[in-house]
Amino acid sequence: MASSSSLSMCASNGAVGVCNVSKSQKVIMSGCPDLFRKRVVNCVPNCSSADFTSLRGSFGAKPLKWESNGEVPMRLGVPCHVVGVRNTNLFSVGQKFQLDDVLEAQQFDRETLSAIFEVAQEMEKVEKNSPGSQILKGYLMATLFYEPSTRTRLSFESAMKRLGGEVLTTENAREFSSAAKGETLEDTIRTVEGYADIVVMRHFESGAARRAATTAGIPIINAGDGPGQHPTQALLDVYTIQREVGKLDGISVALVGDLAYGRTVRSLAYLLAKYNDVKIYFVAPDVVRMKDDIKEYLTSKNIQWEESADLMEVASKCDVVYQTRIQRERFGERTDLYEEARGKYIVNKNVLNVMQKHAVVMHPLPRLDEITVDVDEDPRAAYFRQAKNGLYIRMALLKLLLLGW
Amino acid sequence: MASSSSLSMCASNGAVGVCNVSKSQKVIMSGCPDLFRKRVVNCVPNCSSADFTSLRGSFGAKPLKWESNGEVPMRLGVPCHVVGVRNTNLFSVGQKFQLDDVLEAQQFDRETLSAIFEVAQEMEKVEKNSPGSQILKGYLMATLFYEPSTRTRLSFESAMKRLGGEVLTTENAREFSSAAKGETLEDTIRTVEGYADIVVMRHFESGAARRAATTAGIPIINAGDGPGQHPTQALLDVYTIQREVGKLDGISVALVGDLAYGRTVRSLAYLLAKYNDVKIYFVAPDVVRMKDDIKEYLTSKNIQWEESADLMEVASKCDVVYQTRIQRERFGERTDLYEEARGKYIVNKNVLNVMQKHAVVMHPLPRLDEITVDVDEDPRAAYFRQAKNGLYIRMALLKLLLLGW
Amino acid sequence: MASSSSLSMCASNGAVGVCNVSKSQKVIMSGCPDLFRKRVVNCVPNCSSADFTSLRGSFGAKPLKWESNGEVPMRLGVPCHVVGVRNTNLFSVGQKFQLDDVLEAQQFDRETLSAIFEVAQEMEKVEKNSPGSQILKGYLMATLFYEPSTRTRLSFESAMKRLGGEVLTTENAREFSSAAKGETLEDTIRTVEGYADIVVMRHFESGAARRAATTAGIPIINAGDGPGQHPTQALLDVYTIQREVGKLDGISVALVGDLAYGRTVRSLAYLLAKYNDVKIYFVAPDVVRMKDDIKEYLTSKNIQWEESADLMEVASKCDVVYQTRIQRERFGERTDLYEEARGKYIVNKNVLNVMQKHAVVMHPLPRLDEITVDVDEDPRAAYFRQAKNGLYIRMALLKLLLLGW
Repeated sequence: MASSSSLSMCASNGAVGVCNVSKSQKVIMSGCPDLFRKRVVNCVPNCSSADFTSLRGSFGAKPLKWESNGEVPMRLGVPCHVVGVRNTNLFSVGQKFQLDDVLEAQQFDRETLSAIFEVAQEMEKVEKNSPGSQILKGYLMATLFYEPSTRTRLSFESAMKRLGGEVLTTENAREFSSAAKGETLEDTIRTVEGYADIVVMRHFESGAARRAATTAGIPIINAGDGPGQHPTQALLDVYTIQREVGKLDGISVALVGDLAYGRTVRSLAYLLAKYNDVKIYFVAPDVVRMKDDIKEYLTSKNIQWEESADLMEVASKCDVVYQTRIQRERFGERTDLYEEARGKYIVNKNVLNVMQKHAVVMHPLPRLDEITVDVDEDPRAAYFRQAKNGLYIRMALLKLLLLGW
Repeated sequence: MASSSSLSMCASNGAVGVCNVSKSQKVIMSGCPDLFRKRVVNCVPNCSSADFTSLRGSFGAKPLKWESNGEVPMRLGVPCHVVGVRNTNLFSVGQKFQLDDVLEAQQFDRETLSAIFEVAQEMEKVEKNSPGSQILKGYLMATLFYEPSTRTRLSFESAMKRLGGEVLTTENAREFSSAAKGETLEDTIRTVEGYADIVVMRHFESGAARRAATTAGIPIINAGDGPGQHPTQALLDVYTIQREVGKLDGISVALVGDLAYGRTVRSLAYLLAKYNDVKIYFVAPDVVRMKDDIKEYLTSKNIQWEESADLMEVASKCDVVYQTRIQRERFGERTDLYEEARGKYIVNKNVLNVMQKHAVVMHPLPRLDEITVDVDEDPRAAYFRQAKNGLYIRMALLKLLLLGW
Repeated sequence: MASSSSLSMCASNGAVGVCNVSKSQKVIMSGCPDLFRKRVVNCVPNCSSADFTSLRGSFGAKPLKWESNGEVPMRLGVPCHVVGVRNTNLFSVGQKFQLDDVLEAQQFDRETLSAIFEVAQEMEKVEKNSPGSQILKGYLMATLFYEPSTRTRLSFESAMKRLGGEVLTTENAREFSSAAKGETLEDTIRTVEGYADIVVMRHFESGAARRAATTAGIPIINAGDGPGQHPTQALLDVYTIQREVGKLDGISVALVGDLAYGRTVRSLAYLLAKYNDVKIYFVAPDVVRMKDDIKEYLTSKNIQWEESADLMEVASKCDVVYQTRIQRERFGERTDLYEEARGKYIVNKNVLNVMQKHAVVMHPLPRLDEITVDVDEDPRAAYFRQAKNGLYIRMALLKLLLLGW
């Protein structure tokens, strides 16, 4: 990996290569048009190509290539050179792994999850006006929301401010004047990255977060892109299970409600597949049953799963009842199907009565009547604690992306 | 009152009771699901029931009951206990009275008003970068506005930031995705209280603020709920009278304009009734005359009032001319009635000419043409100072709710 | 100029005069209704009239007059007196000139521009958590946007926060409840100035910023008012030319695209006219050619200009190719004319190939396809650096308006 000590090892060459600079590092250039990372593409580095092997970190963004045809771009007569790479991780403790962007639940392996959860648990203990509450002082987060999601936005903004950072808010970026005028997402990102240190983005198109991350020289967090990913929700769900039940290996989880369209249950299934001896129950009305891709994936990972129509029986056996809302918007004109589906599996006092003492009820919220309000008072009702855990997970991710480990 | 010294006095029991923990205190629990105050409901405290007599403070919210049926909820094998109550008032000076929420003008007695005004006047002297400007550092206020009111929102956000606090903004919570999906206000509040330390709420339904306060474990400030209450406006009005005229006992006030629908004049009348020798003049077009409930209330409190059609005569006698806007939206199709009403009582130079030197003109703003712009230059035009006083009142309330006296 | 030392020189008189207090100074009054600058109008100062000669600074706002007819306004028996003027510039270095508001590009002379650019260049070096990053701590900026412009708003808010200041945001002030109810801009400003230290305003009406500045006792920055001015864009354009090309005297600039309606190219032409030996090329489709007023203005200032239909030839000669978007909204129903105009002059690799090595391509953004994306990788593509320069220019202006030189 290129580091500040690579400064002296650098030697001019004209080879084609890619640069292994992570977003938490800063390229030091001389005579170059600016310090934007993308500019590296146009520079002839005087480092050996060994120092420039992969522009992006471990999370799959396509590396950007630079090319030199022997012609050195110059500014005001000074030839442009990369003279080194400076690590900007001011608070890093070790260098466990590279976290450049948060784009999808699948990007995390078991060790990474465990490490993130460790940081999240530290975040639970951050007290007002303690040194820990100021670690992101001077950092600016832009919340670029192309569709409204006040809950998610407030959670991220609270996380940033709880760590002393500042926020630039765009609650309705779809009407972002320039987007309305036809500007590409890429151009918007290249502008916004000039104003902020990290972007939290919600978009209506699947894959938008990845496109943004490929363009940006600063970290991108996907706060939901269309029917695609919402990785921080998946992380907080798994974190909540660990915090509430005390384990992840050997856990048995009932996924209840809208399993066909529910983004959260699909992501959760993917993540649970990383643990051992997991058992998953699918309890869904016929019209919104879990799709085959997830079932096949679980089978391929040796995860036991079964479908059941008996919520009471499943509830009495599992550690977690993960209830979800039946989304009316998925049914279009078929309100009869919607009404049938939504009333089918309700978590109420009767369900609580058969559940084990240590088991918990979770829900990604908002809930309508799929969990009755009298359940709220039971200590096993974990959904508001789950929402709060979103805060800690997001604090942890902001810390990791901006400061490193 | 339970305090940190009550820690040693606590003894396990299973009685039914209610807990006198104020929002500025923190329940210390052991083995309990979390530290949410609401959780107390589900805990068997090991304190005597004398320590748990009223969950909410003096402002009328219904106390929440906890019950124990001898069954102790447990987490990971540790029985849940309340082990004490910690006062989180870091900057309190004495403990004059409990201020948990600001819900309606009527909740304040004369002594409380006087104490709030004292703090507001201190707030006028808070200088940039002085220690006083940082007392709310580390605190987060969420502005949850279900209908837009930029003026009120900016005033609260300025107040919070002038004291070093931070803000999470929701300018249009009605389109809050989860509210649009059918989430209850209670659920929204329980989520938002995980992200913020205090909520300033504006809602389109009368009583919404009280519902929120009953649910929330953090302070709620009502920034207007439908046709109901707007207590901080009422407070700043009374504060302005005191600051401008120098007294409240013996004051004579003319309420002019829309007295039927005007929320501010109704609240102001209620608050003025707490003082001695007050005289109130009602000067209103026929269609928007003051309603009988207020008149009867004033009479019951021995407050003199009279109706008059002669603004000039009233203006020459009173200390305060409180002008209001005739609200077009109240007249529906009857624009003829609206036009007749709005032109009837205008405060202009002629009115100023008959007013006493020490008297002032007030207005809750925005104004249209019910006060002519040439009045602005007169030192007795107090309405912009009145708006500014809203800042000081809100600074005072934020300080009192978050830090105590 | 009135200063704190003028305190002892003051003597009561009743003359008519105007007061030379700048926005960065604070009038110290005794017994007066409040400390609003506008109140000076109603006070009889006990300073000599020599101290009160012009209420506004060098940027053309109409001075406000005060009058005394011998009658001294009084508050609670204390006659109102101006007792001095306190300079609130805590960080000023010298007093090069007065910068009270930023209203239009023309307000700046060459020396002022040069001084602003010097400060902007210092701003490029402000590091996180350095003392320089906290110079606006305690200051509050209100962004009062009557039409959305997320890019501009974020740039200003980032600038404020990069210097430690705080922000009150109004993303859609047109629906500002009070504006919707018919409140005048002047009244809104007088309310908002009670909450903030500086207002950044975008409005749909030409001249709105000047109206606001005439009313306000705090600095106003025009962030675009209708078809009128957008002075910070003009400043960042000129700053970018200086930073990219290294000079302004002797520069040759091609203005390409929509020259008839493009606010930015018109303002840029005005500013370039302040430099020596400037040559401007106009390259525009027939329907959006540069208007005669600008051409005549340039001629009157001895600036060489010519119109050309040959982008390639012009590009090969000039230092800057300033491309702009053809604005569809200007063509109404005539989409045929729009389509013809928008495809006419595209900056692509072919244009780059004829451009000189030191020349740059600029664009105010957003761009559609008038610059092809393959141009982005060339070091001469300066438009994203130009956007970033907007940050530095706005940091510089905020610093100058709030703290002085």
